[in-house]
Amino acid sequence: MLTCKAAVFVGAGRPLEVREFPVPDVVPGAALVEMRLAAVCGTDVHAWHDPAAPHPVIFGHENVGVIAGLGHGIEADVLDQPLKEGDRIIFRSTPCGRCDHCAIGVRCRNNENYGFMPADRPPYLRGGFGQYLYLDANPWILRVPDGMTTERALLSVIGCHTVMHGVERIGGLSVGDTVVVQGAGPIGLGALTVARISGASRVVVIGAPRARLDLAREMGADETIDLGECPEPAARVQRVLDLTGGRGAEMVIECSGGDTAVQEGIEMARMGGKYLVVGQFTDYGPKAINPSLITRKSLLLSGVYGSTARHIIRSVEAMHRVVTAPVEKLITHQYPLERVNEAFHAHETLEAMVAVILPNG
Amino acid sequence: MLTCKAAVFVGAGRPLEVREFPVPDVVPGAALVEMRLAAVCGTDVHAWHDPAAPHPVIFGHENVGVIAGLGHGIEADVLDQPLKEGDRIIFRSTPCGRCDHCAIGVRCRNNENYGFMPADRPPYLRGGFGQYLYLDANPWILRVPDGMTTERALLSVIGCHTVMHGVERIGGLSVGDTVVVQGAGPIGLGALTVARISGASRVVVIGAPRARLDLAREMGADETIDLGECPEPAARVQRVLDLTGGRGAEMVIECSGGDTAVQEGIEMARMGGKYLVVGQFTDYGPKAINPSLITRKSLLLSGVYGSTARHIIRSVEAMHRVVTAPVEKLITHQYPLERVNEAFHAHETLEAMVAVILPNG
Amino acid sequence: MLTCKAAVFVGAGRPLEVREFPVPDVVPGAALVEMRLAAVCGTDVHAWHDPAAPHPVIFGHENVGVIAGLGHGIEADVLDQPLKEGDRIIFRSTPCGRCDHCAIGVRCRNNENYGFMPADRPPYLRGGFGQYLYLDANPWILRVPDGMTTERALLSVIGCHTVMHGVERIGGLSVGDTVVVQGAGPIGLGALTVARISGASRVVVIGAPRARLDLAREMGADETIDLGECPEPAARVQRVLDLTGGRGAEMVIECSGGDTAVQEGIEMARMGGKYLVVGQFTDYGPKAINPSLITRKSLLLSGVYGSTARHIIRSVEAMHRVVTAPVEKLITHQYPLERVNEAFHAHETLEAMVAVILPNG
Amino acid sequence: MLTCKAAVFVGAGRPLEVREFPVPDVVPGAALVEMRLAAVCGTDVHAWHDPAAPHPVIFGHENVGVIAGLGHGIEADVLDQPLKEGDRIIFRSTPCGRCDHCAIGVRCRNNENYGFMPADRPPYLRGGFGQYLYLDANPWILRVPDGMTTERALLSVIGCHTVMHGVERIGGLSVGDTVVVQGAGPIGLGALTVARISGASRVVVIGAPRARLDLAREMGADETIDLGECPEPAARVQRVLDLTGGRGAEMVIECSGGDTAVQEGIEMARMGGKYLVVGQFTDYGPKAINPSLITRKSLLLSGVYGSTARHIIRSVEAMHRVVTAPVEKLITHQYPLERVNEAFHAHETLEAMVAVILPNG
Repeated sequence: MLTCKAAVFVGAGRPLEVREFPVPDVVPGAALVEMRLAAVCGTDVHAWHDPAAPHPVIFGHENVGVIAGLGHGIEADVLDQPLKEGDRIIFRSTPCGRCDHCAIGVRCRNNENYGFMPADRPPYLRGGFGQYLYLDANPWILRVPDGMTTERALLSVIGCHTVMHGVERIGGLSVGDTVVVQGAGPIGLGALTVARISGASRVVVIGAPRARLDLAREMGADETIDLGECPEPAARVQRVLDLTGGRGAEMVIECSGGDTAVQEGIEMARMGGKYLVVGQFTDYGPKAINPSLITRKSLLLSGVYGSTARHIIRSVEAMHRVVTAPVEKLITHQYPLERVNEAFHAHETLEAMVAVILPNG
Repeated sequence: MLTCKAAVFVGAGRPLEVREFPVPDVVPGAALVEMRLAAVCGTDVHAWHDPAAPHPVIFGHENVGVIAGLGHGIEADVLDQPLKEGDRIIFRSTPCGRCDHCAIGVRCRNNENYGFMPADRPPYLRGGFGQYLYLDANPWILRVPDGMTTERALLSVIGCHTVMHGVERIGGLSVGDTVVVQGAGPIGLGALTVARISGASRVVVIGAPRARLDLAREMGADETIDLGECPEPAARVQRVLDLTGGRGAEMVIECSGGDTAVQEGIEMARMGGKYLVVGQFTDYGPKAINPSLITRKSLLLSGVYGSTARHIIRSVEAMHRVVTAPVEKLITHQYPLERVNEAFHAHETLEAMVAVILPNG
Repeated sequence: MLTCKAAVFVGAGRPLEVREFPVPDVVPGAALVEMRLAAVCGTDVHAWHDPAAPHPVIFGHENVGVIAGLGHGIEADVLDQPLKEGDRIIFRSTPCGRCDHCAIGVRCRNNENYGFMPADRPPYLRGGFGQYLYLDANPWILRVPDGMTTERALLSVIGCHTVMHGVERIGGLSVGDTVVVQGAGPIGLGALTVARISGASRVVVIGAPRARLDLAREMGADETIDLGECPEPAARVQRVLDLTGGRGAEMVIECSGGDTAVQEGIEMARMGGKYLVVGQFTDYGPKAINPSLITRKSLLLSGVYGSTARHIIRSVEAMHRVVTAPVEKLITHQYPLERVNEAFHAHETLEAMVAVILPNG
Repeated sequence: MLTCKAAVFVGAGRPLEVREFPVPDVVPGAALVEMRLAAVCGTDVHAWHDPAAPHPVIFGHENVGVIAGLGHGIEADVLDQPLKEGDRIIFRSTPCGRCDHCAIGVRCRNNENYGFMPADRPPYLRGGFGQYLYLDANPWILRVPDGMTTERALLSVIGCHTVMHGVERIGGLSVGDTVVVQGAGPIGLGALTVARISGASRVVVIGAPRARLDLAREMGADETIDLGECPEPAARVQRVLDLTGGRGAEMVIECSGGDTAVQEGIEMARMGGKYLVVGQFTDYGPKAINPSLITRKSLLLSGVYGSTARHIIRSVEAMHRVVTAPVEKLITHQYPLERVNEAFHAHETLEAMVAVILPNG
């Protein structure tokens, strides 16, 4: 029996352990993926410290791999492009199409996601931090276009797709808009990228440390506000007002998860502006937010997380054909599977922008 | 020189004073309105207690009157219906069409509103709590349809038009939606009315006291939640979940201005739901609100206040031709001009649902 | 082996034949439905005359039935309500969730619909015009609410759901709108119903014969225009202009399939109006349409057919809780399975508004 | 009395005549503009041949000028930027804010546009093809940003603003979309520009002659289809299908006014696609269009012409800060006022892409 390695989360506060697993046979409709790149996401690091997080789990939900085995019946990807062994792919589980969430287009109730499933029962290999990942029957697969780097394909499913989802939910961004992005991490830089290619006339990125803001400049930010140099929310709000003739930004995108970020963002938005709340996925409880500003400014707000099929398709298309910024530089750290714990540390210390695992070296 | 009476706000904490004013001549493009009904609004009562509120002012911004004089050049209303003396009308000032707010369809920066302008300089008569009101050149006038009661015309510009504005901003209400209305005052009952005629399958009104909820039932509420009987927010949230198969409401409309209302409303909204924040116009500072719920529920929120021309046109049309509920009952108290201070008390004590002044008896 | 009867389409120009079929065993995930009501749809009648229509097929795609057998694993409907034998249900096949159409929310490429599938291979029973209908694994099932008539449940999936879909695609109908419905058949009266409960201030139905318009009046039409009495398109356009102060209708909904209907409808729409094209599903080739009117009136048009899960859920909810018109009267003709050919004739001659089959008497 | 020159349309088929006019005094609220650039538009050329076109008229409605005199009371532009003599400006008349068109945001009923008003009564100078243009009281003025070329400012009000208006009406363009532009004239190239900066992954321009398509390539078109080389509509449709994996384009923008263009565009659009009809402003009567495709493809169509204030603001902002293509090259021909008739010929023969008049040399 063929075996392979995968990094397993074995409980809060403990290092991930690289273990041996059998490589499963591929049943009809299923597929086996040889992993190429898997990114460490804040969600992984958060779970890593969370005593309530279920385990054992093989993390890794932002993935690019290569088809190693195709079950009978899978012949084409979601764009009807033929699939064969050796093709690079992006993948996810397919929404059930039957629940009330699917009915209105929000996250499927019944969908288990790769990178979050238990690793103590067959077929075990359900996360990106392993040499192989097993896709259950009926997977959602998108072929990576020829000529696109694997790094760029990976970045298509980090941040950009979710921001595209959010921008769609909030009725779009208009050409000529000033956009403020709160947060200079991978999601924030995804928001910057989406704003840039959507015709924003000015994109302001707020964050820290300096190195991240330098990267933001390189990715096309017109202005950056360094939290270290400008620690007062009121001063940051004033900066945005100064840049916009006193009006405020047409769109603000929260990608920081910061405690005071939402109130600050609301103050930065113009009359009739839009506010996209992407970064508040982790629940840190209530914050001080003035709802009167929402009313008086006639603001439109939307929360969003994850994405749907069309956003992934568009994100890959945009990364492949539209984005000219050297986004590969966002992948600042690369690790073999054995050094997965170092990758988590690099993420957590903000040393890495995007830290990736190369499960097959 | 002809004179007339109007009630003047002369400073916080002081009774409104009924004073004599000259009735101005009508210049070209302007109009003179003999007032029929003017409603006391929460904004008026709030200003009445606010030491920072400018004075002297003739309050009254929810008005119906009759044309007493038409300046040269005004021949038709906004629907191109001919105007003549004696016609009942709804009116407002016309947005400037030149400012950046007009450009995007939010409240005009340059527009002064009748009911908020200074009463110490000619033509003085700029509010509804007087026998006459003078409309400056270029007014926005809509003729009240024949066969519509003056009461119903007045109610068209209390609550309903703003809620219509908000529902439009948030992308509409869908037939079959469950709608929760927080607040059982005039705005809340306006929201109930709009939800009812928009095809909501179930409308739940939350408020107090009991008499207001009884009126809500009479106006078509399917369920009411009495703040007196159900004082715990968590219990009210549970009621909404119970009514909706555990999913929460498709739309929640905040019309109470309550301190904890926004957080409670967010908890009542379903995954992918909508939240309209109408009631938080007065700024009482930051509240405890959990932004993580906005993200995790993929909520869409919108603040709104006031309305634009099309909402008034639609509100009148709907009140005239669509709404079958006996909305006239919402006008629970009527006062001659001399008893304007009693009207303010009746509003403030929640004794009145809508208290109106009949400036000409 | 248990057997049952179903009506089979055996080729253009030939009567449907009632044949005997084995009742299949229910495999895990699948379900067996004992049919209650199945409507004859224009699509069926069209196929019946179409030499290119595939056969043999058991028609019937607007269905209500009762669960006769539930495969292992189906425990709840799409709203998570428990399911058991004897429950009345509405059902369809579940979209694949993987194709590019699913990605953007239009009709699934891979979905076969009950009522259109071949009847010459097991499990045969794939249409509503039979005593039993077999649902393949993973069906989309919605329980009919207790207290709702089976007739009303059936009407939820005739017209209304598609019009709701279309109204959503075109950005909604606003309270106070004047709506013109072209066509007085089942779809047209569905459009009337949706417009009525969505707050339209005036609904005008155009069609023939007189009996259908009388039904339209009974369902809430404010005005009807009889094609017999008013045979000239220009005169009908003038009627709509006269009713709307010369402005035209805010929304026009094409439900007739008529040759000149689209041009006529465009002329009836107001400046900035909306035009929903529901009735042109059958391809009769190009028509004379003036695109300059689309530009000069800044019209928004949308085509639509079928519906998605949320529209069916809402349609059932609305029919159950919102619609007060006596819609059951739309079902003018009922036939046992053996008289299915009479039902087709009644549909085709316009004698019936909705003709239904009671496959189990 | 100061005089100046302007070119006057004196009737169909006759050359424009350069005449002398008095330069009017500037009354309060009004302004005098010294013209810099005025473009010849297809509308002008069309009127020039139209026996029904009113005259005398000074044409020129796409204009950039310099403030030569400011009436009392005008102190700032629509973004509240101070105005003074010598500032370069874009301008138009302000919508009335009172008509039913203003109510819903379509073209004001009462607005007269510069370039279309009679030249036989004072103040005469109401079009761009003159040395001076007189702005009536209450004009809409936007200051041209410092550092922006006058050519680029002019191009902001040719095509781009209208396409932005249309894209907004149709619910936006999504990042990653394939966009087909029908027509390679000034509007078509404006559409290309808007699509390019809005994140389209591929823009296909269809038109002729070759020189226009070469310019389109230079402005960023990924593909061009030459009507000369590919004269069959079916072949052009096939090209678009081939480029899109058989799916068709997400958005098609009609900017040609061609007889068969709308049918062809509908065939090029994908299932669930969008079709913007900009180019059919001139009424050439009904065309052969298959409405069944609108239904079966669930297309969304919108007509649009002109623009509103926000689209001009955004267009200038985008041209100034976002568009990197060398759009100035679109102005292929420049003429002094005296040679205005040559400019009309250059437009009409398609020799010029954009022909402009320099009224002050």
